[in-house]
Amino acid sequence: MLHTFVALVEDKPGVLTRVASLFRRLNINIVSLTVGRTERTGVSRMTIVAESSPTAGHRIMASLYKLENVLEVDDVGQRSCVARELALIKVAANPKTRSHIFELVEVFRARIVDLAPESLMIEITGVESKIEGLIQVLNESGDRILEISRTGRMVMRRGQHTSRVLDAMRLPGVAEAGETDALATEDSNILMAGETGLL
Amino acid sequence: MLHTFVALVEDKPGVLTRVASLFRRLNINIVSLTVGRTERTGVSRMTIVAESSPTAGHRIMASLYKLENVLEVDDVGQRSCVARELALIKVAANPKTRSHIFELVEVFRARIVDLAPESLMIEITGVESKIEGLIQVLNESGDRILEISRTGRMVMRRGQHTSRVLDAMRLPGVAEAGETDALATEDSNILMAGETGLL
Repeated sequence: MLHTFVALVEDKPGVLTRVASLFRRLNINIVSLTVGRTERTGVSRMTIVAESSPTAGHRIMASLYKLENVLEVDDVGQRSCVARELALIKVAANPKTRSHIFELVEVFRARIVDLAPESLMIEITGVESKIEGLIQVLNESGDRILEISRTGRMVMRRGQHTSRVLDAMRLPGVAEAGETDALATEDSNILMAGETGLL
Repeated sequence: MLHTFVALVEDKPGVLTRVASLFRRLNINIVSLTVGRTERTGVSRMTIVAESSPTAGHRIMASLYKLENVLEVDDVGQRSCVARELALIKVAANPKTRSHIFELVEVFRARIVDLAPESLMIEITGVESKIEGLIQVLNESGDRILEISRTGRMVMRRGQHTSRVLDAMRLPGVAEAGETDALATEDSNILMAGETGLL
């Protein structure tokens, strides 16, 4: 089963080594990992997707919390969240075969970001299945994929769920958070339908 | 100075630990890192952005090559390439203040991917400066940013430059590659102007 963790860590040397070593020690394979800056200086945010047994979530979370420089950990597995991935795909295409790729790109709401005489580069964002959908269509229509680069999954909870965000919004506490939650989920279902599907 | 490396690695346990430890040993800070799947099963692609002296590029590349499970390394620092980053930004917004954020999102060619009564979530892709531009405008117009998640830089060379891609295209060799190169650069300048700017 795939687990997805969001960890806020201090931007100090060695923190990535510690996180990577932890998963190595637990003998859990990291499927994808992204590290980037956040809204706070000196704090980085990691999204880690790991393959392990369904019950391992709590153990991994507790182990992450015990590491130096780790500020906050969230297991978003079961929660309502937005998941996104960015991919760059280079496809062989000459002036004759280009137009049919242009059509595909439009259907998948992707973008052409580079064009060379013998190839072009597609940028696409979305859930994993959408990106895999485009790759499959390209393969099946006989286009030669030259290079693929993917960021791996990045997630953020819908609405204002985390204590950190509630603090930032200066909301008084859990009771009100629960209320906002229910509304948020209802509201965002409208968008969810369009965003979690293939297109 | 920021160095950007693309490394193709075998998808084996411990490879991330080895790469992270290497940078720790060299005492070089990793600014951002993404790991994701590629066009080949069993092979992952890392984009690593590291802060070090201008002359350290060769040393880092040689050290990466010496690691187990590392198949190929490319220092894209000086080369013509497409750089992209994905960011999710959660902003506090009620029904009254939403419309002005909708306008910003349109100008920056971003997308709204979630909407709750007190907040909304923006998805944006582009070069770092474009994403920082949006964050700055949001801050300056008094919107409260609740959460930011960024993937870090991902790069791919323009045209068909790498030996691996030339192999995939079954082009005979370096001479022809050089020719294609020159054309590719000319062609892609048209897109570059639009893509490397702020918007």
